[in-house]
Amino acid sequence: MKKYLKEDKWSIIEEGFQLHQHEISESIFSIGNGYMGQRANFEEAYSGPTLQGSYMAGVYYPDKTRVGWWKNGYPEYFAKVLNSTNWIGIGIEIEGEILDLAACTVREFTRVLNMKEGTLSRSFIAELEDGKEIRVEALRFVSMARHEIGAIRYAITPLNFSGKVTVTPYLDGDVQNKDSNYDEKFWAEVYKEVGESEAALTVKTKKLDFHVTSVMSFEMSKNGEPLVLELEPIEKDKYVGYRTSVDVQQDEQLVIYKYVANVTSRDYGFGQLLDAGRAALKSAVEAGFQELHKEQVNVWADKWRESDIVIEGDVAAQQAIRFNIFQLNQTYTGEDDRLNIGPKGFTGEKYGGSTYWDTEAYCLPFYLSTADSSIARNLLIYRYKHLQKAKENARKLGFVKGALYPMVTMNGEECHNEWEITFEEIHRNGAIAYAIYNYVNYTGDQAYLGQYGLEVLAEISRFWEERVNYVPAKDQYMILGVTGPNEYENNVNNNWYTNRIASWTMEYTLEVLQYLKKSEPTRYEELVEKLQLKEEETEKWSEIITKMYYPYDGEKDIYLQQDGFLDKDLTPVRDLDPKHTPLNQNWSWDRILRSAYIKQADVLQGLFFLGDRYDLDTKKRNFDFYEPLTVHESSLSPCVHSIMACELGYKEKAYEMYLRTARLDLDNYNNDTEDGCHSTSMAGTWMSVVHGFGGLRVKDGELHLNPFNPGHWKSFSFKVMFRGSRLKVTVGEQDVTVTNETKIPAKVNVYGNSYTVGGLSHVKVNH
Amino acid sequence: MKKYLKEDKWSIIEEGFQLHQHEISESIFSIGNGYMGQRANFEEAYSGPTLQGSYMAGVYYPDKTRVGWWKNGYPEYFAKVLNSTNWIGIGIEIEGEILDLAACTVREFTRVLNMKEGTLSRSFIAELEDGKEIRVEALRFVSMARHEIGAIRYAITPLNFSGKVTVTPYLDGDVQNKDSNYDEKFWAEVYKEVGESEAALTVKTKKLDFHVTSVMSFEMSKNGEPLVLELEPIEKDKYVGYRTSVDVQQDEQLVIYKYVANVTSRDYGFGQLLDAGRAALKSAVEAGFQELHKEQVNVWADKWRESDIVIEGDVAAQQAIRFNIFQLNQTYTGEDDRLNIGPKGFTGEKYGGSTYWDTEAYCLPFYLSTADSSIARNLLIYRYKHLQKAKENARKLGFVKGALYPMVTMNGEECHNEWEITFEEIHRNGAIAYAIYNYVNYTGDQAYLGQYGLEVLAEISRFWEERVNYVPAKDQYMILGVTGPNEYENNVNNNWYTNRIASWTMEYTLEVLQYLKKSEPTRYEELVEKLQLKEEETEKWSEIITKMYYPYDGEKDIYLQQDGFLDKDLTPVRDLDPKHTPLNQNWSWDRILRSAYIKQADVLQGLFFLGDRYDLDTKKRNFDFYEPLTVHESSLSPCVHSIMACELGYKEKAYEMYLRTARLDLDNYNNDTEDGCHSTSMAGTWMSVVHGFGGLRVKDGELHLNPFNPGHWKSFSFKVMFRGSRLKVTVGEQDVTVTNETKIPAKVNVYGNSYTVGGLSHVKVNH
Repeated sequence: MKKYLKEDKWSIIEEGFQLHQHEISESIFSIGNGYMGQRANFEEAYSGPTLQGSYMAGVYYPDKTRVGWWKNGYPEYFAKVLNSTNWIGIGIEIEGEILDLAACTVREFTRVLNMKEGTLSRSFIAELEDGKEIRVEALRFVSMARHEIGAIRYAITPLNFSGKVTVTPYLDGDVQNKDSNYDEKFWAEVYKEVGESEAALTVKTKKLDFHVTSVMSFEMSKNGEPLVLELEPIEKDKYVGYRTSVDVQQDEQLVIYKYVANVTSRDYGFGQLLDAGRAALKSAVEAGFQELHKEQVNVWADKWRESDIVIEGDVAAQQAIRFNIFQLNQTYTGEDDRLNIGPKGFTGEKYGGSTYWDTEAYCLPFYLSTADSSIARNLLIYRYKHLQKAKENARKLGFVKGALYPMVTMNGEECHNEWEITFEEIHRNGAIAYAIYNYVNYTGDQAYLGQYGLEVLAEISRFWEERVNYVPAKDQYMILGVTGPNEYENNVNNNWYTNRIASWTMEYTLEVLQYLKKSEPTRYEELVEKLQLKEEETEKWSEIITKMYYPYDGEKDIYLQQDGFLDKDLTPVRDLDPKHTPLNQNWSWDRILRSAYIKQADVLQGLFFLGDRYDLDTKKRNFDFYEPLTVHESSLSPCVHSIMACELGYKEKAYEMYLRTARLDLDNYNNDTEDGCHSTSMAGTWMSVVHGFGGLRVKDGELHLNPFNPGHWKSFSFKVMFRGSRLKVTVGEQDVTVTNETKIPAKVNVYGNSYTVGGLSHVKVNH
Repeated sequence: MKKYLKEDKWSIIEEGFQLHQHEISESIFSIGNGYMGQRANFEEAYSGPTLQGSYMAGVYYPDKTRVGWWKNGYPEYFAKVLNSTNWIGIGIEIEGEILDLAACTVREFTRVLNMKEGTLSRSFIAELEDGKEIRVEALRFVSMARHEIGAIRYAITPLNFSGKVTVTPYLDGDVQNKDSNYDEKFWAEVYKEVGESEAALTVKTKKLDFHVTSVMSFEMSKNGEPLVLELEPIEKDKYVGYRTSVDVQQDEQLVIYKYVANVTSRDYGFGQLLDAGRAALKSAVEAGFQELHKEQVNVWADKWRESDIVIEGDVAAQQAIRFNIFQLNQTYTGEDDRLNIGPKGFTGEKYGGSTYWDTEAYCLPFYLSTADSSIARNLLIYRYKHLQKAKENARKLGFVKGALYPMVTMNGEECHNEWEITFEEIHRNGAIAYAIYNYVNYTGDQAYLGQYGLEVLAEISRFWEERVNYVPAKDQYMILGVTGPNEYENNVNNNWYTNRIASWTMEYTLEVLQYLKKSEPTRYEELVEKLQLKEEETEKWSEIITKMYYPYDGEKDIYLQQDGFLDKDLTPVRDLDPKHTPLNQNWSWDRILRSAYIKQADVLQGLFFLGDRYDLDTKKRNFDFYEPLTVHESSLSPCVHSIMACELGYKEKAYEMYLRTARLDLDNYNNDTEDGCHSTSMAGTWMSVVHGFGGLRVKDGELHLNPFNPGHWKSFSFKVMFRGSRLKVTVGEQDVTVTNETKIPAKVNVYGNSYTVGGLSHVKVNH
């Protein structure tokens, strides 16, 4: 029984409370605003299994690493996203009995993630041990309009008694990360204060000295009438709160409004934190819950206007794609170029909340098409800011020059330590270069190249220059000992994708150099000087490009994933006894490695990225060879296959691949959603629809669409921001309509024909 | 200043006490008797850096493993040799001041490992804080004649005062392993008793329930006169002891004799342990220290008679080779077929005291030539007993049949968890098969094959049968994804050595089957039935043997270490800036892997093992290609190269390689002797002399010698036990003398000519 959520176009709905699903729901019903995020933990006490998670973006901890066998170059620390002060807590006692859903009878439980409005609500009837029944209705959100603010409305109605309700709103900084390697607590108390109407708590991380200040206040009303309360202040280690009791008659509704401002030393000096938190809180309290809620609805309306996908005729698909878009929008808003996108967003601790190549390879396209170009640009700037660290990382691994970006990072330093990943999965460097191309190609922002792009490209090209291996006997350059995107191969020679993306990086770097020399000669000279770029270097890059070795099989006319790939047993996945899959749960690592089975797109990833350089036949031959060997055991795999299948006209395969990720978390497909949602792979699902079914590409500054309707839907539509205009593309059963929602005219190529879509008008094209 | 020990033919001598070298000396001056071992820790209190180590062979602990990133098939536990009850302890107080060499001034310190007699002695003058001076002379040994017994003579003489000496002999089971993964203690108390003249302590391991009982008694005398003592019994957690004080006049000698019996539940039922310990102790005490010492000298005289190597004209070399022989003899005596040889013997905890392929590849030849054949046979039986576990291990890794012996083990189960080692370094299976061949070839004990050998061979052949990969396009069998003996390559395809030893195993198994069918038809039928051996299987083995793929380069006419080896940068080690070596301390793992540098013999290991199948030219071409790429960063590497160099007539290279291991620990060459000595590689040094300089081989039941004098020595001689006779081979400057020390005539082939050496006579042959 994986499927326990109700289908709905705009909401995720859970009906009936089941303890064993609670941690999954805690992930799925998470809320965030790019600045902070909160798992769907309960406000009141809860003694059942739970993964507490209150996360402040960019606040992390360098936890001492755990390793079986040390290798030179491994990092000593693994940076992990921190579970921070629990700011949602409201203790509830009914006539002295603590409300705890794990310890009472729960009826009419409903939990709703309202994606349209960006709120989490919950209602239930709790029958306490002594038979007393109360109804609770809770609503909360983290404000998109005021990112430091979280607000909660928590209502209690006694149903069959009158009595005393005791309420304890609090801030608790005495929290722990579940994934702490040595069961250490990461926070120390700095300051606390429980004032007349406001309580404040400042905690700091035991390393790196991040300070987080939370300031809270609360109000209560009964049947809509504000209450004047007698408050008992509470102070404990890393904890502040109030306790107050109210007599409530049967059927009266007691409502608690809790407002919290969370501010961090990432934005304020230590001395300013308390004032900043108080000011943010004051303004929020003055606005009041209603107004804050209204603001929230408005910001989300804007988000949906820019990024919604509508699927007609399939509620489950509609719900799923909106859930994915919702998660992406609440994980990263692009306002802060020091932030990036963790694989679990704000929904869990796993993967340490760190940045992977997922961002460049999968997430960037989503933000390029659904938000102002400055948002995607900030994702690029993030890596630019880490260039120095990437150079240091290359030195650590023995390279004299160039930059190797880390596989997993929070601050630019490598966090991970499996040699086959950390040291060998160097293709990530290519994805970071490719993102620059992708951004500039999409937005036309050529200025980025001189400002930031070239430096990153040149240092990555230098890395490849040093990393290749010249083989005199063959007069060719090779790249030995790598792990490609398909992590079910380790330490292989000449992974085609890696060789290709390395060579491509050097090509593109030379192209950008030519462009800058011509278009921005002064800046060009400055950069050559700053980079100390020598002619021998660019000449060497040209030589490597010319003499790069690409493994290839003449008989099958396909690129080889790596040297020797055809020596493997090539039995396709469909002929494998299903008891063996997923391989990563059933096979030992050596067996996986020597098999031909592919975790995620590898050769095909290259044909996808560099799609305009390969003809359809080449793509088809390689797809036909590799896809049947692919087990898709990375959530990032199906989307690339779906998009390529669309291009190749394999409609059923495209839809099958789309389905594999669309409801990954909602249906807990991988049995691991309790750890958090697969946030970055959600961008892949979005790509399946827009780049796959929609066939979106940008060529020579023109938006190309090549849509087809997968046939299971009445119609679907998506939004595309492109160079100032916003287009809504609706793919019906017979035709495609491109509607320009802005006043800026747009040129669009549909099925190979160019159209100009005037401001606020549309074109319709038959399939 | 690595070299701090005095050169001497029969002893290891340290003069002058230096704190920072103490842990190195604790390793080097270790004593053992195959049943138990003891680092050269001090009897009295010591507050300086020390690695306490009292080890009982076969008593181990399954410590919870520590791993960075889990893989299917990894063992949950790492079995490690246990630091057991400290039985040497004797607390000393002089007028209330504790004797502690880290806290007083030490003069005239001498520590001597008397290898001829198997004893450790120590003498020094300690000047205490208040100026009192005492002379201490301590002597101890673990009895070779009575393996459960340890004995200590500890003498104190006040030099400039008269006063009270307080003595506290004790047994302390409250000890810890330094390498405990989670700082846990592994022992719990079972029983303790402090009687009038005897104290006993039984402790048990918290897992596996090993019980160790230690029983001690002690005597004291002053100036040779036995003392009647007033004893204060002491009992603490896991601790028993006595405290007693004696008034000693200036220049009087107070002598303490401490006797301990250590018995374990490996040999006795829980209920018998105390009685067994008491009985052993009683008998030892009755014999007295003098007699025990005499027995010790006698047993060691026998050992030396059988295994000594004499080098004339080079004291350092003489000392080194005796040290190696001494360590081997005190580590493994071959009396107990449940025991094996840990890489550090009884000298430290590192590598968990577990069994590696070192035993079969390096140690077996030493025991074959220097002891009764039953000793080497017991090393084989050890693996026979683990056959069931090896089959289970293969199942765990997904194999339907066959056996994969563990890489690292204590009880037959795999202990290690690096996938590239544990799962992929499968050539170990070949070494275990090869050891059977080696043993039978040397001893002529064909009966072993039917009794035990075939079962192991057949199950290993079955493993290879399933592990190979048929490549239809090439009509060949390959072995993909392995790590060869050269661990500086991981997950390679078609490691020549692995393919070769796999194929060889199947060849030998078929040969043994033929032999048994003909010579022992009844047993043959029994075994075919027991093994359920099918004709398809042996046919399949034949096919694999015929169609096995061996990577080879036609141009250079050499075997390739693995597919693609020649694509690497082939710069020889001599052209590498020395700042890079040792690579394992300076290079990240990926850099090591993609380099051509070789940790230890790989192709050459195969040419060494299967030396009679390859001609000298082939060996020469491969040696000339691979040796210059070899960094010898395993202590097991130089010996194989030394032996091959001898065969190829590369005298200087042979001697250079010999020197790299001969004094490895005595000169702390690898800067790690404090962790323990490299016990198994000592067998390699022995091989360098006997198989290398001596040119010893056994062909068709005949002992072949092909000696040469490396030129740095006047002469050298070694002992060889061969089929009942013991030969002493002396290699002088001009001639070789083979002396038969037994009455059984022996046939010997020297420089290609066969001689019969009569009982107690000799032959002399010119070079």
